[in-house]
Order: sequence, then C-alpha cells, then structure tokens
Amino acid sequence: MKKSLLALAALTAFAGAASAQSSVTLFGIVDAGVARLSAGGKSVTGMTNSGYNSSRLGFRGVEDLGGGLQAGFWIEGQLTNDDGNAAGMNWQRRSTVSLMGGFGEIRLGRDYTTHFWNTTVYDPFGTNGVGSANTFAMLGAANANVSTAVRSNNAISYFTPNLGGFSAQLQYAFGEQVSGGVKTNNFMGFRLGYAAGPISVHGAYGKTEGATDAVDHKAMNFGGSFDMGFLKASLMVAQEKNGAGLKTIAIEPGIMVPVGAGVIRASFARHDQKGGTAAWNDNDWDKIAVGYLHNLSKRTTVYATYARIANDGTQTKTVANNGLGGVTASPGGNSSGIEFGVRHAF
Amino acid sequence: MKKSLLALAALTAFAGAASAQSSVTLFGIVDAGVARLSAGGKSVTGMTNSGYNSSRLGFRGVEDLGGGLQAGFWIEGQLTNDDGNAAGMNWQRRSTVSLMGGFGEIRLGRDYTTHFWNTTVYDPFGTNGVGSANTFAMLGAANANVSTAVRSNNAISYFTPNLGGFSAQLQYAFGEQVSGGVKTNNFMGFRLGYAAGPISVHGAYGKTEGATDAVDHKAMNFGGSFDMGFLKASLMVAQEKNGAGLKTIAIEPGIMVPVGAGVIRASFARHDQKGGTAAWNDNDWDKIAVGYLHNLSKRTTVYATYARIANDGTQTKTVANNGLGGVTASPGGNSSGIEFGVRHAF
Amino acid sequence: MKKSLLALAALTAFAGAASAQSSVTLFGIVDAGVARLSAGGKSVTGMTNSGYNSSRLGFRGVEDLGGGLQAGFWIEGQLTNDDGNAAGMNWQRRSTVSLMGGFGEIRLGRDYTTHFWNTTVYDPFGTNGVGSANTFAMLGAANANVSTAVRSNNAISYFTPNLGGFSAQLQYAFGEQVSGGVKTNNFMGFRLGYAAGPISVHGAYGKTEGATDAVDHKAMNFGGSFDMGFLKASLMVAQEKNGAGLKTIAIEPGIMVPVGAGVIRASFARHDQKGGTAAWNDNDWDKIAVGYLHNLSKRTTVYATYARIANDGTQTKTVANNGLGGVTASPGGNSSGIEFGVRHAF
Repeated sequence: MKKSLLALAALTAFAGAASAQSSVTLFGIVDAGVARLSAGGKSVTGMTNSGYNSSRLGFRGVEDLGGGLQAGFWIEGQLTNDDGNAAGMNWQRRSTVSLMGGFGEIRLGRDYTTHFWNTTVYDPFGTNGVGSANTFAMLGAANANVSTAVRSNNAISYFTPNLGGFSAQLQYAFGEQVSGGVKTNNFMGFRLGYAAGPISVHGAYGKTEGATDAVDHKAMNFGGSFDMGFLKASLMVAQEKNGAGLKTIAIEPGIMVPVGAGVIRASFARHDQKGGTAAWNDNDWDKIAVGYLHNLSKRTTVYATYARIANDGTQTKTVANNGLGGVTASPGGNSSGIEFGVRHAF
Repeated sequence: MKKSLLALAALTAFAGAASAQSSVTLFGIVDAGVARLSAGGKSVTGMTNSGYNSSRLGFRGVEDLGGGLQAGFWIEGQLTNDDGNAAGMNWQRRSTVSLMGGFGEIRLGRDYTTHFWNTTVYDPFGTNGVGSANTFAMLGAANANVSTAVRSNNAISYFTPNLGGFSAQLQYAFGEQVSGGVKTNNFMGFRLGYAAGPISVHGAYGKTEGATDAVDHKAMNFGGSFDMGFLKASLMVAQEKNGAGLKTIAIEPGIMVPVGAGVIRASFARHDQKGGTAAWNDNDWDKIAVGYLHNLSKRTTVYATYARIANDGTQTKTVANNGLGGVTASPGGNSSGIEFGVRHAF
Repeated sequence: MKKSLLALAALTAFAGAASAQSSVTLFGIVDAGVARLSAGGKSVTGMTNSGYNSSRLGFRGVEDLGGGLQAGFWIEGQLTNDDGNAAGMNWQRRSTVSLMGGFGEIRLGRDYTTHFWNTTVYDPFGTNGVGSANTFAMLGAANANVSTAVRSNNAISYFTPNLGGFSAQLQYAFGEQVSGGVKTNNFMGFRLGYAAGPISVHGAYGKTEGATDAVDHKAMNFGGSFDMGFLKASLMVAQEKNGAGLKTIAIEPGIMVPVGAGVIRASFARHDQKGGTAAWNDNDWDKIAVGYLHNLSKRTTVYATYARIANDGTQTKTVANNGLGGVTASPGGNSSGIEFGVRHAF
C-alpha cells in the first residue's frame, strides 16, 4: 500500500511501442513528528522524521516485454524531511533493475537483505519511530558487518513466484574483494514463508563474511502473524551471532487492534545477549511500546507512540528516532520516548 | 506563479480513492546567466545561477481528506545548474508536510523563517542575482545564528487563513539541544500583514537563541508595496541585532515599472551599522541596483542587471551571485557587478 | 532513442497557457551487470553499473515561445545503481537552459565538451563498460585539465541547425579565474560534421588552459561510420596533447553487426604515446573488445562483453567499469574483463 501511490500517465516516445503497457510511478512519503526522548537524567525535544513509515522519494516502472516477460526498475531514497535531506539525496533505500516472468524475478542492485524483512514485517511498529524493537544490527560493536544489516550493495536476488501462498527469495551480494585476500561483505541469504488469508509466517537467514571467521555475521529470524479481524497477533524471534559466538536473541510478541479508523499497537521485546563473557551475557534489554494511529485517509495518518527501554548490566540502549538524539541511557538505566506525528504518502 | 508550473495527471493506486482529488506537481526553475564582478581592482567573469529566480526542482501535492481537511507535502531543492549541482541534490529549500483546513495550516519540517520573507518580497530584485540588497544575515560574523537566516530545520508553523486580506504566521523551530545545556538554534518568530488590491504590507520578527544571551539573534523587518499599475513602489526596513547590541539596519526603497512585456527594476539600499565600537558603527554600505527583465512568456524571461556597492569605514561588502566569486572589495572600497541571464520555469 | 522515453502529460498552471505546447519528460536508465576483472595476477568479481549505457535520471522540457522560438531545460544525473548512488545524487551529466529557433540553439550550463562526443559516438562500445576504448583523458597524470575531459561547468554553446546534413557546435566555458592570475579551466572548442543516410563523419577540437602554457590541454579527434545495413563500420582517430608536447594518439576501427534482435560489436584500439621521454613514448597500450547485445525490446537489452588490454613499457592500463575495481595491471602486463548485464531505459 504505502509503496504504490501515484501512477503517472505514460506515453513512450517510441513509435510503435504500446504505451498502455508502460508506466513510471512517482511515489513517496513525508512523515514528520515531534518527540521527546528521556535518558540518563536528561531529555531532548525536537522534530523527527519517519516515525510511522520511512520518509522517501522514488521512481519505479514495469515494461511488458511480451511472452510473459517483464523488465522493471526501482530507485528509492530516504527523505530526512526535518532537515531537508542535509546529507544529500541518494537512492540507497533501493536501486534495482529486474527481469520478471512466470519463473519469478531476478533482481540486480542495492536492495534489502533477506534477514531484514521479518524484523520489520512482524514488529507492530515496523522499524520506524520510537516504538520499533529494532531487532537488526543487535550485536552493535560486536557486529562486524552492519553494512548488510538492512540492505546490501551489489546484490543479486531470485524471488520465486507465489506458489499457493508459499514464496522464497535467494540472495547473494558481492563483497567485491580482490582474490587472495579477505572476503569481507560477501553475503548470502534466503527467506521463505507462507502467507494466505489471516496467516503469515516467514523464516530467514543471512550470513555476511568478515575479514576473519571470528567477525563473520549470521542472522536468523522467524516471524508469524495471525489476523483475527478484531486483533492481529504477531510473534518474532530473531538471533544474530558473530563468528566468535557472541549472540543477541530477541523475542517480540505484538498486537495490532483496529478501532474504527484507528489502530492500537503494542509490543514487548526481550533482547537477550549470550555466548560471551559474564558482562556481555548480562547486558540484556527489554523494550515496551504502545501507540495509536488514526487514518485520516489511506494516504494520511496521525500517530502517537510511547516506548520504554529497561537495560540490564551496563547496557545503554536508548529510545531514539531519525533526526533526534543526544541523550544516552546510563549503564543499566532506563530510557523512554514519546512521539506524535503525521505520515503523508503520495 | 513561479512555483506552480506543471501538474501531472495523477491516478492513485488505491481502489476507491477519488483520483480527481489527488495531484502531485513537479516544478522547477533553471536560471543561468553570465556575470562580471569587479572589486578591489580585480574582476572575474563567469557563469552564475539563480540571477532572477532561484533555480530549483521540487515535488508537491495536496490530498483532500474530506470534511474541509487537506493534507499536503512539499519537497524542493536548489539547482546550481552552472556546475550540475556539484554539492549534491537535497531538499533544503523546503521539505514539509501539512494539515490544512478552515482553521489555516499547520506545517512541519524545514521551511523559510518568518523574518526572511519581507527581505525578498519587498526587494525589487528579491534575494537573487547581483541586484539583491540581501537584507538578511546582515550582521555577518557578529551573527551567531545564520542557520535561521533564511530557513530553519525542525520547524512548526501555523498559518492563519486569509482573513479579509489579513494573515499571520507563527513559527517555532527546535534547536534540539539536550536539557540543561545551551539553547542554541531554538527559534521563534511571527509574521503578519495585509494584502489586497494594490496594497501589500507585512511586518515580521524572529529570535534565534545562541549559546549565550550575547549571541542571541533578533531580526525585525517591515515592508510595503503599492502597485499603481504603471509603477509599483516598495519600501523595506530591516533590522538585525545580536544579544550584545550590535545592529545592522537596512532601508531600501525600490520601484518596478512595467514596459510592455518587460519590467524595469531599481532599488537603493542603505545598510547602517549601529550599537558597537566606532569602527563597527562606521562600517556602513550602500547598494544601488538597476535592471531590466523581458518576459518571452510567463515561464521564460531574459534579464540584465547592474549593481554597485559603496562601502564605508573598513567594510568589504562585494557584489556577487551564486556560482561566481573570488573578488573582494578593498576595505571601504567599491564593488560592482553586471549580469545577463535567462530564467526558465517548468 | 535512449534519451526520450517517457513523456508526462503536462498541464501548465497558467490560465491561458497552451498546455499542448508544454511538456516535461522524466527519463532514465538503470543498467546493472556482473563483471570479472583480471590483472596483475589477481581478479575481482562484482556488480557494475552502466555497462551498456550510463545509468541516469533526468528531467527535460521544451516550451514553445511563439515566433519560432523555444526555451528548454535539461537536468540529468548519474545513477550508480549498484550502490544506490552512495556519493549522492547530482545533475552533473548535464544541467542546461536553452533558447532555440531557426538560428540554432544557445545553451548555458554544465554540458559535454565538444571534443568528447566523437570518442563515444564512434566507439562501438561508446564510453561504457569493459569494452570502451576510453579515448578521452588519455594523458593521465600528464593531463592537467581532466575537468573538461567529458563535460565542463560554466559552458556556453552555440549549435547550428541541421544544414542539409551538416552541423556545427561552438563552445566556450569560463574558468572563472580572477583577472591578472592564471587562466586555468578556460575552455574553447568546436565540433563539426555531416550525417545523412548511412554516413556520419565528425571532427572536433577542444583546448583547456592550464595554470601555465606547459599544462594547457588540447584534444582533437575525427570519427566516421558507414552503415551498410548488414554491418556498420567505424573509425576514430583521437589525439590529446599537453603544452609540453606530450601526446597520446588513439586509432580505433570498429564494427557493429546486426543479428536478428541482437548486435555483435567489436573494436581494436591502439593508444600510442609520443613526444616525451623514451619511457613515455614506450608506454603504449592496445585494447580489443568483443561483445553481443540482445534487445528484448527497444528499452530493455541484455549484453555480454569481453575485453583485453596489452600494455607496453611500464604502462598499467587496466580493464575496468563503474562500480568495480581494485586490480591493476603489472607494468607492461595485460588485463582482461568480462561483463554480463541488463540495461533498462524508462
């Protein structure tokens, strides 16, 4: 829904081309909010972006090649609308070219990694705003390969067609290292699942090679949701492990409850560190989040979210969102955030 | 006029959405010129951008939410078309999301500051090209808060509807400083005025907090214009003051005279420094500018402008424009510039 | 063909404007490939962009001013779709505004230099992918003015209309140096030629001033092609010389052979260094390239290319493409590359 919002009438300039078969879509989201983050005895109040959906601008299109074949492109970049994209516009959310047909889709370019999807699809808050459990890049400094935490450059993916509700994706991304040296950033992963009617379940895996085996990064996660109409329940379990055996495991049950034109969202996420020193293993953290979003239309939504993180050991995880920061939880301390915003898609 | 140039037929991808009520507009300006700047006994000749209107690219749209409510977005960035945007494309001219209705408009994001508008609306040369009096950021190095001179990140604005010609804007922008520390970049301002028939008058104020009170920045300005048909006369008075009492006051009368498809523009601006040492107070400067623009159509205009700055004391203000520089007036010396260009809007 | 792919229905916002006479065109190319480069006993495999045509995104439009006059704009930037434009989006491929009529076209802004065109038009591989002979910027470190190798900022061009097959371009670009100092980057050039039916021939020249005469840069080239239907033969001769007399001369014969929906491409390019020390003069290199491209439609093409460079003396030229590198030929050694990709235009 949020990625398919405006189709422009397209007239190809080629004589003889069937214009009805071609289209380019301009699409985007501008999502801005006001948030207050509190941690370590201090607070900061300001404007955030992407509190409900990631602000973005993109262009995409599909061409019918005949014989059941299609070609397509997709370029999409982030908008940090609170500061006017001070860092500059790029197309790092996705920039791909695809060939599609009855066999499925082959896709080349910068794209999401296989193991990222479940962490956003099965979190009631996605990976946006103060409420997200952010169950990716969980190893922090111990994660040698954050470059593939969400997306990867130089990726080739194969997507099966929908096979009676089942589907799968295989992905390989080149680390582009010279032969005989390290294999840093070489990535391979897969995702498979089933979605039909009220049920959706997916499992995914992704391995990113590091400069040495000890800094390899392996992510594995499972998610499921069941939509009972009056309530949609979800559960996600995500694990990340480096080559030295350090692990972070997240378990996140969540609910989404429709209320008229609105939805109440709530989740609890436990992040459990394992496999390391007693200090490492003790640095767990929990996050609770609750929010309400109200749809003014299918394109425009206002939302409010509250979230709280409780750290164990010397962990310092802090509630945050894009465009606002500066406070950090005290070691083992708490952190909270509240955010009000509006998401407008085009 | 110059911001509303192309409406793309829009088809929303949502079944049931009323497509006639939605639109996204692509708009822009490419303005290029050739200029010669002379100062300090040297000169430089080259290509400029934005000599008549700021070169730009943007997307904006409005959605009708029903019940008199509307949502809208606006992202717009600068084009430095003489060098192909070497610094990279962003949306720093404006990137906002709005809710609008009978109550007016609430707007969130990066936007113009309240006290900027009069300095461009009531200058016959706007804030573009060699002719502009540039009555913003006048304190120079003594201005601790140039970040809000034209626009501010993290801004919330409320615009009243047009009330029989009267209108007002209130604006607050978050400096996003952590509690207990400095308040740098916190901004608040307002603008109010009347525009109907041949008359337009506006006053505005803006205060930006600095790290200490001494570097607070306060801007205040008034402008008015009267359009007699054969001649439009304007007057602007602008003052900037920092917390230590340093002031620059500008007074700028101007005229615009329609001549067939063209317009003759002329202005004189006196910039008077006050409130400081004798050296500060003596560093005044005057600028005269005269130009002619010829409209080939409503979208395409060719123009020529000549301007001259006379500095007092050790002031070194120099005629300049986007994309060309390198000469600087001798202390207390003069500077001049001449520019020929073409502005094309789309 | 590849630059004119999508016309958007345009409605000008001006009452009374003739909307049928206005249009803005969104256009672009996403071209991605997988390549293996081998040199110096090592290899690297990864994803490339722009292997057949340069990946790009652009907007352009033309306005009819009446009386045979037109105004137009063109902004176009590179897409590095393998990494999502990590360096940021700009419009450095071209950003111009033009006035056009029976007299020809006057164009202002960043644009291609006159002496670049032949090096891409008369190379069967253009200036893209592992196969291109890259007969521009051939002097390498001895070339003081690579800023104008392909394009120049601050350029003014005059293009004649097509005069019975003949046409010419004059170009001047401002180096924008302050008077009395160096003239670095001042550029002037021309290109003229004839194209009608199966024949196309063009000659071009471009001189870029350096800080001293010794680092002036002069490029001169000639190209021609003859299309016999079953085979298109081309020949290009390009010379670059700096003010100290160092030269590189390239001679490149090439062929393109249509085969059904495909085209076989092949070229041989000799790069001969002259005018310097024995070591300089000995550092020649040859490149052969052969490839096949298959058009799935006019917009979508798959391609495969193989190329090999043989260096003389201590030359280290290496087969490469956008987005992949890291290997370098041994002095006087060889280098090769193979690339498979898909080009999709929109």
